[in-house]
Amino acid sequence: MSTPFFTNQGPIKISEINRYLNLNINLTNEDFEVTDIKDLSNASNKEITFFHSKKYRELAKKTKASFCLTTDKLKEDLPISCTPIIVSNVLISTAIITSKFYPQSINDDFDQTVEPIQVTKFKDKVNYGNNILVGKNVSIGSNCKIGHNSIIEKNVIIGNDCSIGSNTIIRNSILKNNIRILDNCVIGKHGFGFFPDKNNNIRYPHIGVVLIQDNCEIGCNATIDRGSMSNTEIGKNSYLDNQIHIAHNVKIGANTIIAGQVGIAGSSIIGNNVRIGGQSGISGHLKIGNNVEIAGGSGVIKDIPDNSKVMGYPAKNIRNYLKENR
Amino acid sequence: MSTPFFTNQGPIKISEINRYLNLNINLTNEDFEVTDIKDLSNASNKEITFFHSKKYRELAKKTKASFCLTTDKLKEDLPISCTPIIVSNVLISTAIITSKFYPQSINDDFDQTVEPIQVTKFKDKVNYGNNILVGKNVSIGSNCKIGHNSIIEKNVIIGNDCSIGSNTIIRNSILKNNIRILDNCVIGKHGFGFFPDKNNNIRYPHIGVVLIQDNCEIGCNATIDRGSMSNTEIGKNSYLDNQIHIAHNVKIGANTIIAGQVGIAGSSIIGNNVRIGGQSGISGHLKIGNNVEIAGGSGVIKDIPDNSKVMGYPAKNIRNYLKENR
Amino acid sequence: MSTPFFTNQGPIKISEINRYLNLNINLTNEDFEVTDIKDLSNASNKEITFFHSKKYRELAKKTKASFCLTTDKLKEDLPISCTPIIVSNVLISTAIITSKFYPQSINDDFDQTVEPIQVTKFKDKVNYGNNILVGKNVSIGSNCKIGHNSIIEKNVIIGNDCSIGSNTIIRNSILKNNIRILDNCVIGKHGFGFFPDKNNNIRYPHIGVVLIQDNCEIGCNATIDRGSMSNTEIGKNSYLDNQIHIAHNVKIGANTIIAGQVGIAGSSIIGNNVRIGGQSGISGHLKIGNNVEIAGGSGVIKDIPDNSKVMGYPAKNIRNYLKENR
Repeated sequence: MSTPFFTNQGPIKISEINRYLNLNINLTNEDFEVTDIKDLSNASNKEITFFHSKKYRELAKKTKASFCLTTDKLKEDLPISCTPIIVSNVLISTAIITSKFYPQSINDDFDQTVEPIQVTKFKDKVNYGNNILVGKNVSIGSNCKIGHNSIIEKNVIIGNDCSIGSNTIIRNSILKNNIRILDNCVIGKHGFGFFPDKNNNIRYPHIGVVLIQDNCEIGCNATIDRGSMSNTEIGKNSYLDNQIHIAHNVKIGANTIIAGQVGIAGSSIIGNNVRIGGQSGISGHLKIGNNVEIAGGSGVIKDIPDNSKVMGYPAKNIRNYLKENR
Repeated sequence: MSTPFFTNQGPIKISEINRYLNLNINLTNEDFEVTDIKDLSNASNKEITFFHSKKYRELAKKTKASFCLTTDKLKEDLPISCTPIIVSNVLISTAIITSKFYPQSINDDFDQTVEPIQVTKFKDKVNYGNNILVGKNVSIGSNCKIGHNSIIEKNVIIGNDCSIGSNTIIRNSILKNNIRILDNCVIGKHGFGFFPDKNNNIRYPHIGVVLIQDNCEIGCNATIDRGSMSNTEIGKNSYLDNQIHIAHNVKIGANTIIAGQVGIAGSSIIGNNVRIGGQSGISGHLKIGNNVEIAGGSGVIKDIPDNSKVMGYPAKNIRNYLKENR
Repeated sequence: MSTPFFTNQGPIKISEINRYLNLNINLTNEDFEVTDIKDLSNASNKEITFFHSKKYRELAKKTKASFCLTTDKLKEDLPISCTPIIVSNVLISTAIITSKFYPQSINDDFDQTVEPIQVTKFKDKVNYGNNILVGKNVSIGSNCKIGHNSIIEKNVIIGNDCSIGSNTIIRNSILKNNIRILDNCVIGKHGFGFFPDKNNNIRYPHIGVVLIQDNCEIGCNATIDRGSMSNTEIGKNSYLDNQIHIAHNVKIGANTIIAGQVGIAGSSIIGNNVRIGGQSGISGHLKIGNNVEIAGGSGVIKDIPDNSKVMGYPAKNIRNYLKENR
C-alpha cells in the first residue's frame, strides 16, 4: 500500500523475513530483496503477499507476488512463480512482516517532528490559538482556524475553510474542505486491532488513514481510528455528535447524522442519509443501507437493508420491536 | 433573547432579511429596521418572530411582532399589525435569520480573545496552573482553582470556591459557587441542532448558555452543550460522573446523581433527587419526575412520573422488566 | 492504609474526632492520639476503626483498634479494649474522619507541585514532547516517551518502555513496564463515591491508586478511577479500547480485551482472558469469571461464571438470548 503517512522501510531480504518469523527454511533465493507487502491482487513480482483462507483461492492462483505467507494446506493454489512460506498463523505472520516494512504504523507514540506553528510556514496563513504544534509535511488550505493546544501531526492534509477546535489531536488524516473538528478529539490513531497472545499481544499494523469529506462536523471528545489496510472514511456533509467512536476501516456515507455516544465497530459500512440515534452501537463488518434510521440505544448486529427503520438489541423493525416491548 | 454571551448584530433591514431568505417580496416597508428575533410571545413591534405550527395559534393571534416568518396556511392567524413573510420551511428560515442577528452562535471556533491568565486581573486572585487561557470579560470569584492547559472563554462567569480541572474548556457558561469541573471536559459548546440539507446542513443558532448551580461536580471527559433558545441547566448539588453527555436545553434538577457514560438528549427535563445508572440514555423532549431511579443501561423513551423505578429498553417498571427478562 | 500517594495528617486527638462528628461525648481519654483509620482487621491499638454491619461481627470481636465508629445496636460485639463512638451513620462518619487523616484524597484539584519536564531530572532520560509537566517525587523508568501537553502528577511511578500519549493526565497511579496510555486519558482521579446529602454531598475518600501491570494498552479518551480503600487494577497484557470507563476498585485480570465505550462500575472483578464487546456495561460489585465472553452492548447485572458466553440486558447465555430475541 502506498501512503504518504507511513514510510516503507523495505527492501527486506527474504532471509531476514524468515528470521523475523523464526523460520528455518532453506531458500535458494535467500538474498532476494522484497520491496513491499501487499494483498494477493496488488502484489508485484518484487513483493510478498499472504493467503490465509480458501475464500481467496481464485486471487491466489493469479498472484504476481514472488513470495506468499500461507499454510501447508493452501499452498497448492499458488502459481509456480510464487514461493510459499509456510507459517502456523498467516495473519500473525502478516502482521509481523507488515510491521517490519511500516514500523511506524503499529504504535502511536507522540509525533517528534512537530514545531510550534509560529515557526512554520503557516504562521501568517492560518488563524491559530496558543500552543499549537504542527508536524513535518503538513498541508493546510486557506481560511482555516486551529484552536489552542491542538496538534496537527506529520503529513496531515487539511483543506480550505476548516475549523479545528482546542485540545484536539489529528494524525494520519486527510480533511477536505469546510470541516469542523471540535474540541478534545483524537482523529487518526491506530485501530484496536491485534492478535491476542498470552504474554504480549501482537499489534496489527494500521497503514490506512482517516479521510473526511467536505462539510462534515465531528463533535467534542470524539475518536475516529485510522484504517488498517484500507481507510476509515466519513462522507460529505455528515455530522457526528459528541463522544462518538468510529473504529478502523469504517466507511460512513454522505449526509449521515450520528448522535452522541454512538460507537461503530471495525470495518462496518454505513450508507448515505442514515440517521443513528444516541448511544447506538453497530457491530463490526456490517453493511447498513441508505436512508436507514436506527433508534437511539439500539444494538445492530446484522446488515440492515436500505430504507429500514430499526430499534432494539438486537435491532429489528421498529414497529415489531415496540409491539414486543411495550 | 438578551444574553451577555452573544452580541446582537441588529438592526437588520427587512429588505435584507428578504435577501437572506432568497425571497423576492415587494414590501412597502422594506426599510423597516428589525432589532431582534424572538418567539411569538416575547417579540416587540420592532422585532421579527416565527410561527411554524398551529399548536401556537393562540400565541400567534396576540403577537406584537411587526413581521413573522410563517407559511401560507398559517398566516391567517396573525394580527393585522404583523406582516407575514411566507417561506417554505419556517424553522430553517428562522435559523438563517437568527444566525444573522447572532453570527457567533452557530459555530464554536476557538476564542481569539484569550490571554494567558498571568497577564490578566486574575493573576493574584486565582490559584492556577500552567498554560491557562482566559477570554475577555470573564468573571471569576474568590478562592478558585484552575488546572493546567484549561481555557475559560470570553464572558464565562465563575462563582466562588470552584475548582476547574486540567485540559478543560468552558465557554458560554455560568458556574455558581463550590463547583468542581474535572479534567478534559468541554462545557458550553453549541448543541447538535441543525436542519439537514443535501449539500451543507444548516446550523441552528445556539444562543443559550450552560448554567450550573452550587455544589455540583462534573466528571472527567464530560460534554455539556449550551442551549439553543433557552439554557442547559444543572441543579444544585447534582453530581455527574465521567464521560456523561448532556445535550442542549436539558434541565437537570437538584440533588440528582448521574453515573458514568450516561447521555441525555436535547430538551429533556430531569427532576430533583433522580438517580441515573451508568450508560443509561434518555431520549429528547422527555420529562423525568422527581425521585425517579433509572437502572444502569436503561433506554428511556417516554416520560417517567415521580417516584418511579424503571429499567430496560424501552425503560419500564423495574419489577415488570426483571420478571419479563430473567 | 499506607500509601505513598496520600500523606496521613494524623495523629488526631480523640476529642477532635468527636468535634468533627459534632458529637458531645464525655470520654475519659480525650487526649488519646489516634494515628490512623483502618478496617476492623487491620487497625492497631493506636488506631480507630469502623463497624457498620453485623456481617462483620466476627471481625469486630477481634479488632485491636482502641476506638470504633459504630451504632448503638452493634457496639455490644466490640471487645472491652475498644471504645465505641456511637454515630447515626457509620459510613458517613467514616468518610468524614478518613478525610481528616487524608485531606488530599477527596478532591482532585490540579497538582501544584508540577514543573516543566525540562527542569527536572527526567530532562535527559525521557523522550518527551512540548509542554510536559511532572509533579514531585515522580519516578520514570528507562526508554519512556511522553507526548505533548501531558501531566504526570506527584508520586506517580512509571516503569520502563512506557509510552504516554498527548493531552493525558496521570495521577495517583503505578504503571509497570511496556505500557501504552494513549491520548486525552485521565488515569487515577477519585472515584464517583460519596454519600448523598441534601445540600452538599459528602465525598468518600479515595486513598487507593490505579495499578497497571506490564504490556497493557489503554485507548484514547479513557478514564480509569483510583480506588477508595483498595486499588483499581488492570492485569498484565490487557488491552482497553477508546472511551472506556473503569470505576474505582475494579480489578481486571490478565490478557483481557475490552472494546470501545465499555463501562465497568465500582468494585467489580473481571477475570483473565475475558473479552468484552463494545459499549457493554458491567454493574458494580460483580464477579466475572475467567475466559468469559460478553457480547457488545450487553448489560451485565449479576456474576458470570468461568467460560461463559453472555449477551443482552440483563446479560444471559448468548444462545438463549438470541433464541428469545430474533
